[in-house]
Amino acid sequence: MKRVIGFGEIMLRLNPKNYLRLVQATELEATYSGAEANVMVSLANFGVDAAFVTKVPKHEIGQCAVNELRRFGVDVSNVIRGGDRLGAYYVEKGASQRASKVIYDRAHSSISEAKPEEFDWSLIFKNAGWFHFTGITPALGDNATAATLEAVKTAKELGLTVSCDLNYRKNLWSKEKAGKVMSEIMPYIDVCIANEEDAADVFAIKAENSDVTKGQLDKDGYRSVAAQLMNKWPLKKVAITLRESISANDNKWSGMLYENGNAYFSPVYNVHIVDRVGGGDSFGAGLIFSILSGYGSQEAINFAAAASCLKHSIEHDFSLMSVSEIKNLADGDASGRVQR
Amino acid sequence: MKRVIGFGEIMLRLNPKNYLRLVQATELEATYSGAEANVMVSLANFGVDAAFVTKVPKHEIGQCAVNELRRFGVDVSNVIRGGDRLGAYYVEKGASQRASKVIYDRAHSSISEAKPEEFDWSLIFKNAGWFHFTGITPALGDNATAATLEAVKTAKELGLTVSCDLNYRKNLWSKEKAGKVMSEIMPYIDVCIANEEDAADVFAIKAENSDVTKGQLDKDGYRSVAAQLMNKWPLKKVAITLRESISANDNKWSGMLYENGNAYFSPVYNVHIVDRVGGGDSFGAGLIFSILSGYGSQEAINFAAAASCLKHSIEHDFSLMSVSEIKNLADGDASGRVQR
Amino acid sequence: MKRVIGFGEIMLRLNPKNYLRLVQATELEATYSGAEANVMVSLANFGVDAAFVTKVPKHEIGQCAVNELRRFGVDVSNVIRGGDRLGAYYVEKGASQRASKVIYDRAHSSISEAKPEEFDWSLIFKNAGWFHFTGITPALGDNATAATLEAVKTAKELGLTVSCDLNYRKNLWSKEKAGKVMSEIMPYIDVCIANEEDAADVFAIKAENSDVTKGQLDKDGYRSVAAQLMNKWPLKKVAITLRESISANDNKWSGMLYENGNAYFSPVYNVHIVDRVGGGDSFGAGLIFSILSGYGSQEAINFAAAASCLKHSIEHDFSLMSVSEIKNLADGDASGRVQR
Amino acid sequence: MKRVIGFGEIMLRLNPKNYLRLVQATELEATYSGAEANVMVSLANFGVDAAFVTKVPKHEIGQCAVNELRRFGVDVSNVIRGGDRLGAYYVEKGASQRASKVIYDRAHSSISEAKPEEFDWSLIFKNAGWFHFTGITPALGDNATAATLEAVKTAKELGLTVSCDLNYRKNLWSKEKAGKVMSEIMPYIDVCIANEEDAADVFAIKAENSDVTKGQLDKDGYRSVAAQLMNKWPLKKVAITLRESISANDNKWSGMLYENGNAYFSPVYNVHIVDRVGGGDSFGAGLIFSILSGYGSQEAINFAAAASCLKHSIEHDFSLMSVSEIKNLADGDASGRVQR
Amino acid sequence: MKRVIGFGEIMLRLNPKNYLRLVQATELEATYSGAEANVMVSLANFGVDAAFVTKVPKHEIGQCAVNELRRFGVDVSNVIRGGDRLGAYYVEKGASQRASKVIYDRAHSSISEAKPEEFDWSLIFKNAGWFHFTGITPALGDNATAATLEAVKTAKELGLTVSCDLNYRKNLWSKEKAGKVMSEIMPYIDVCIANEEDAADVFAIKAENSDVTKGQLDKDGYRSVAAQLMNKWPLKKVAITLRESISANDNKWSGMLYENGNAYFSPVYNVHIVDRVGGGDSFGAGLIFSILSGYGSQEAINFAAAASCLKHSIEHDFSLMSVSEIKNLADGDASGRVQR
Amino acid sequence: MKRVIGFGEIMLRLNPKNYLRLVQATELEATYSGAEANVMVSLANFGVDAAFVTKVPKHEIGQCAVNELRRFGVDVSNVIRGGDRLGAYYVEKGASQRASKVIYDRAHSSISEAKPEEFDWSLIFKNAGWFHFTGITPALGDNATAATLEAVKTAKELGLTVSCDLNYRKNLWSKEKAGKVMSEIMPYIDVCIANEEDAADVFAIKAENSDVTKGQLDKDGYRSVAAQLMNKWPLKKVAITLRESISANDNKWSGMLYENGNAYFSPVYNVHIVDRVGGGDSFGAGLIFSILSGYGSQEAINFAAAASCLKHSIEHDFSLMSVSEIKNLADGDASGRVQR
Repeated sequence: MKRVIGFGEIMLRLNPKNYLRLVQATELEATYSGAEANVMVSLANFGVDAAFVTKVPKHEIGQCAVNELRRFGVDVSNVIRGGDRLGAYYVEKGASQRASKVIYDRAHSSISEAKPEEFDWSLIFKNAGWFHFTGITPALGDNATAATLEAVKTAKELGLTVSCDLNYRKNLWSKEKAGKVMSEIMPYIDVCIANEEDAADVFAIKAENSDVTKGQLDKDGYRSVAAQLMNKWPLKKVAITLRESISANDNKWSGMLYENGNAYFSPVYNVHIVDRVGGGDSFGAGLIFSILSGYGSQEAINFAAAASCLKHSIEHDFSLMSVSEIKNLADGDASGRVQR
Repeated sequence: MKRVIGFGEIMLRLNPKNYLRLVQATELEATYSGAEANVMVSLANFGVDAAFVTKVPKHEIGQCAVNELRRFGVDVSNVIRGGDRLGAYYVEKGASQRASKVIYDRAHSSISEAKPEEFDWSLIFKNAGWFHFTGITPALGDNATAATLEAVKTAKELGLTVSCDLNYRKNLWSKEKAGKVMSEIMPYIDVCIANEEDAADVFAIKAENSDVTKGQLDKDGYRSVAAQLMNKWPLKKVAITLRESISANDNKWSGMLYENGNAYFSPVYNVHIVDRVGGGDSFGAGLIFSILSGYGSQEAINFAAAASCLKHSIEHDFSLMSVSEIKNLADGDASGRVQR
Repeated sequence: MKRVIGFGEIMLRLNPKNYLRLVQATELEATYSGAEANVMVSLANFGVDAAFVTKVPKHEIGQCAVNELRRFGVDVSNVIRGGDRLGAYYVEKGASQRASKVIYDRAHSSISEAKPEEFDWSLIFKNAGWFHFTGITPALGDNATAATLEAVKTAKELGLTVSCDLNYRKNLWSKEKAGKVMSEIMPYIDVCIANEEDAADVFAIKAENSDVTKGQLDKDGYRSVAAQLMNKWPLKKVAITLRESISANDNKWSGMLYENGNAYFSPVYNVHIVDRVGGGDSFGAGLIFSILSGYGSQEAINFAAAASCLKHSIEHDFSLMSVSEIKNLADGDASGRVQR
Repeated sequence: MKRVIGFGEIMLRLNPKNYLRLVQATELEATYSGAEANVMVSLANFGVDAAFVTKVPKHEIGQCAVNELRRFGVDVSNVIRGGDRLGAYYVEKGASQRASKVIYDRAHSSISEAKPEEFDWSLIFKNAGWFHFTGITPALGDNATAATLEAVKTAKELGLTVSCDLNYRKNLWSKEKAGKVMSEIMPYIDVCIANEEDAADVFAIKAENSDVTKGQLDKDGYRSVAAQLMNKWPLKKVAITLRESISANDNKWSGMLYENGNAYFSPVYNVHIVDRVGGGDSFGAGLIFSILSGYGSQEAINFAAAASCLKHSIEHDFSLMSVSEIKNLADGDASGRVQR
Repeated sequence: MKRVIGFGEIMLRLNPKNYLRLVQATELEATYSGAEANVMVSLANFGVDAAFVTKVPKHEIGQCAVNELRRFGVDVSNVIRGGDRLGAYYVEKGASQRASKVIYDRAHSSISEAKPEEFDWSLIFKNAGWFHFTGITPALGDNATAATLEAVKTAKELGLTVSCDLNYRKNLWSKEKAGKVMSEIMPYIDVCIANEEDAADVFAIKAENSDVTKGQLDKDGYRSVAAQLMNKWPLKKVAITLRESISANDNKWSGMLYENGNAYFSPVYNVHIVDRVGGGDSFGAGLIFSILSGYGSQEAINFAAAASCLKHSIEHDFSLMSVSEIKNLADGDASGRVQR
Repeated sequence: MKRVIGFGEIMLRLNPKNYLRLVQATELEATYSGAEANVMVSLANFGVDAAFVTKVPKHEIGQCAVNELRRFGVDVSNVIRGGDRLGAYYVEKGASQRASKVIYDRAHSSISEAKPEEFDWSLIFKNAGWFHFTGITPALGDNATAATLEAVKTAKELGLTVSCDLNYRKNLWSKEKAGKVMSEIMPYIDVCIANEEDAADVFAIKAENSDVTKGQLDKDGYRSVAAQLMNKWPLKKVAITLRESISANDNKWSGMLYENGNAYFSPVYNVHIVDRVGGGDSFGAGLIFSILSGYGSQEAINFAAAASCLKHSIEHDFSLMSVSEIKNLADGDASGRVQR
């Protein structure tokens, strides 16, 4: 299977144990993650040769981030050392009607201040077949935007498939800025992953008859969003995740894959949430793996949705599920019976 | 907003982690709380100038209780030091059909043995506009009964609004004793908070057609309880919390505010419980805040119910929610979606 | 009440905290348990004189297993010391669609290599009225099979009631081997406990119209399984546990007792799972206690089902519920309301 | 070896982890211990048939205390259930120049309010050869004093050896009261255990030339204290523990046994402290075991001193050392080399 | 006693448990501290009215810092909310020959970017008698330098005593910059606290015959440093802490107070370290308290040295010792004997 | 620098937290280590290309072991999957006079039952320059002995340097068996690492005038051991670690390197122990690194001794020190002063 390269930020994630609020916590769980890093870990778990490109400071906290990637099998030989700090974010897990909360402290991180010329994309992409990033990476700053653009251009030149999860982050840039920058990048993308809000936030592409705070879903609406994206850019596939939020503990979760004018919907899962951060990333990983494996459209969206459904049962950002565990669910066994 | 004074006991709360039973535990989480202290912490969180009056021993465990109040912004300048011990209670969190369990070890605490003359109520109530206590305080013993009576009388003389949560505790006194003592106190109360069982236990006031162990609720019954309370004493408002227990993990929760002959019901929330101890106290705090803020009746009961609904999602007794978080729920967003 | 003797393996159980996967864990909770040991602990909790027979190594880990039994009141005077190792097993708690996982590391344990002549059953059964084991014990190896056979024969000679939970474990022996060995043992058994899969796996006895992975239950099917077992061997009672797996968090749970040609079904409980390992063992304990207490058939199955329903709310294998707590549920209060 | 009976209080011990002060702690380690209970656990560890007599409340916290004794092999069949509460104490571990701190919350415990007639000493002492208690037991109150007196009288009538560790606790009674009560009890005692301060506090018996706060030790002084005790009462042996406090982390520790006019001194150990609470109790247990084993005087004091030296390396009150581990130290190997 | 105002940064401190290295940690202890905040907490513990001035972000992590100060009695009414982030630092506790390690991540914090005009010093100093800060505050950036200068000038005008701990941090500024800035500030300072390295780093003032990496101390050298500082600026007192580092676990610790041409040396303590971060701050607090209490020079340095000796026995930055505990050590009892 | 290959067993290490005894523990820290794996991790930390060869089961526990190696940079591409179990061992940390205790449960592990032909040494040694193993590997069983022999022979043929740490384990084989097997292997070894006991246990080579339980060291004795080893086999270097055990907390530690007829002794370090398991392995790694780096004899032994001195300050088996940290100590700074 082809080598996959991810590019983005990896941060220190700090969260209180269980359902404690941050103001109650005297200890924080410390893990290391980020949207693209999460995808690479999932892929490495699936047996894919996955490498992550980023920049981290030389001190121990930077090393911790590298170690966490290595631990789960991601190739870190293209991680650059230097700069001032590793970004951090605080997560407070919600429950019932209380929402989860994420506080970012990522400004001035090593990767956000890395210069475009620090990345030798021709070298990085050697032997690789796929390049993945999310809308967070160019949002980190002008240097990061430039590096991303250079990366996608080089990737296309070298014949890699390029995937992007729109992942709009309002704390990083305005909708206007996002729209402008992402419009420059979109022409180089083959596979676009999004949720309904992303498309609306970044490109003002909206589905009708759907209100996410009410948790209603409308298949036609999603189909329409995908079609609009495809019309605008030379995408080969658009995949959209569909979350209906019943409460902070319970969500409905499914996905749609749109290609060749057809929309393929996965089953809808009732997920009882352990940790939903990283849910979208595991969907992206499932999709990339499906495509690399040559799955058909329905099989692909089913695998991606099952992969991300299962992510919700795992603490922290990384999805640590095997291909066989995911296939078991995609094949219909959602009973959660003990396996001895 | 007016200064609020709370009076009562603060105890060491000891509970095993997660769902462990007490007989399994080798470590206990140690927090400090009590019915009225919980209300003051909520109010301080809302930005109200809230002070707590109690007596704690001079040693470190007494100091811990004071520190926990200070930490969350409660004024402790009226806390008296002395006496023998801080009361304690053990909490075992239930799950599914297994009920939560509370074991009290509060006899002979400093506050329960404090003499009435130790409290200079005229001084304590200086600059204050509201006095709150619960039926637990006079139940602590004859000294505490006398202190409470003196407090409510002084409060009324000085023009404070007085609120009382009936909070009947069968381990502290008999129904007969409770009825006799509370009947002396009720004439000084403006706002009475209760649940159906409290009114029945203390004053033998019952609603028809409602069986709490079955979890059935009957709006007319609650209206009738409130009306009976109002007929008997010169109350301005009666508020009742309505809990339907599906299991130890899942409850339905709502509230009713009765004033001027009308009953206002909040929405009914399906709460997936993190910790339900202190749920009633956060309702009281929400109600006091609503009244101090001049909310209308429906807005007031909605805020109080939303405040206490959210409390169920927080570990330990204290409700650590902001006004804006509560308003968000009261305004209808119960989706628990991540806030970044 | 008569003294009960259990015979089998006790292992070190290692599990990550909460919902962590094994590959995430840096700490493991360490408890000591096993199918028959779990039953003995339940019985000791109920006030029964319960003794456990096994063999553990002389070192500290063996001592830990003994201590855990003693702690909960089980008589350990018949535990033999020696051999090489205490078996261990790893448990990973599932959530939502992710299944729980059990990894055994029990080969070559002291009990599995104990010689039959190390157990003096006449002495062990002195003053005892009941002997209990499960299908796991003879599956531990040829020595263990021989010891079990000797035990049941001696038990019958001495007039003890003998109960066996079929408990088929595919990692320990093949269906063929299990069927052959268990067929030698069945003639000595009075009370047989099973789930539908056990009867099918060990004796190829199947109920029609029931598909456990779909979670469907069929009363007639279970009745048929019990009747077939009774026809084949001189059993006095057959009890079957009925699990419908909604997800790793939520199961439906009930039981059936079949005797004298009649099937008695307990209510069906919706259990929100804390830890389901040991659920079947607590059912066995509830049933043994019910029979020793002279309960009627319906009362007996209700008590056993309530006992095991409540087990699902307790961490680790041991069910630490009292008779009164179980009766409260069996009598219909499933509300899980706080008990103060 | 003869059965040993201990009588006294068992309490909930709560301490912060490691070196945290109480005002920093949000979790407390919960164990169950008491002076005489500690001795019984040590003896059970040594293989002695040891039983503990006390009264604990019927609720779960009382049960926890019983379970902890059972876990380590102590016979609890004479523990009475009832009364209001289990006493508790808080321990804060000192370090360097900061002293450890103990805060007691033991008033009104079940055992302190038990009536003398609740204990049937003739029955309790059946098959027993030794009775042990400390000066704490009669100090719990008048009921406890009466029970202790009855116990020692019955013990002597039945021919048991009686040992008492003076263990003066200034929070429980005055020196005057202690002196008066203990003087009534001393005539029934065979083996008296003390430290220099105890003898001075209770009986105003002082050694010259020794200042414990300076950590100086004077062999002649201790010999003189023992001789004075022996002169005053019909004791057979007096044992004294000798602690020189270098800091909260480092102590020198040794013991003296005085009998037949001769003083036998153990080696002096430099102990690097893990937890020193219970150090004296493990000395008592070592001494009782030595005498029951028929050790010579020097061997006996060496074993007792080694036993208690090693206790200082163990967390919490209970000393969990085996006879062979203690003998290894008593025989001179203090190197602490790894044992594989 | 006069009100004391502290000014500086408060940060999130993250450290692994016990002696784990950062690369081993999956959980970090989270406390909130800073050089001047530590001093204020010590003073509040001593009963002094202590207030802390800083700026923290509006989110939960900022609130946590405020709560931690409130918890220990520090007045936070002058804490400004706003800006982007709370600074953080990582601490790894050393052991034996392995040094402790501190990694700062404090750039761009709210306080470092606060504008001088955000602080109304006349208002802040109302009713205050003492102003304390350290050399870290002006080192945070040009805004902070300006704010500090304005603060010291206002303080002098209003007649407050001003104390400064030089606290040179090489990561924040160069020696040249430090020397230049501090030289502007020194004319307003009454009490200067330093260690030998600080004076050398900031002002190139050196003591002869002393090599800190060898742990040698030279009384004359320290006296010379103090005299040089006094000659250069109109200081009233200079206090110097003297650390001899035996290993990461064991240090010798003492202090010198120089005033009116005389040097007063405290006893030298052998400290077995629990956590040495904040040791210097607790010395400053002890000194300020001593001066505010009117202690003589020798008594003052003895109290300050004892206060900071004891800090080394406490986890995290805050020194949580009472005046009586410190006096007990200053009066000569360093035995660390248990206090019951 | 040349690639280094290690061969041996990696096990699950389970230990209670801090100083708890195993019989007190309800949680165990879970790490993964083994003598040769520890060496590879150290080397990877030093920047060496280090690979580890072993066999682990396919399940999650096997994967955990692989992940832990990857996390710290060890190449695991030659780890074989299969077999039944991962070996485990229990560690109880000693304190003061109480010895640390190690209980092995490693029989029947995947690596111990791996067939020699599973390892393709020519392939494994491709591009490698050094092969390291310890006496534990051939002791795992006859298969392991055969595999080891094949490995050393191939290594020599391919021109690799071969190092072996004698590491005698009495639980794995008798002295006779060890002597016989190791004598076959020694001819292929270039660098032999041992402690005095190893040489005596395996080859009956003894130094005079040295008694390890007394902690005495004798330079001549060690020199003599090394010379005897060199005389017997064609070794190029012999390195011996010298431990003097003061107590379980405090050891003296140093090393000797013997080559070309000269003995080079490192300084003697007083180590205050955090965890001494793996101390010898970090010495081996330090030595290999020194030799690969071309250090002189004195520099080499100094680096190795400093590396292993520092290991004693780190929890668990792996030594996580950098080259610069070790050089800092080797260059003489043992003060453990904070590094900011």
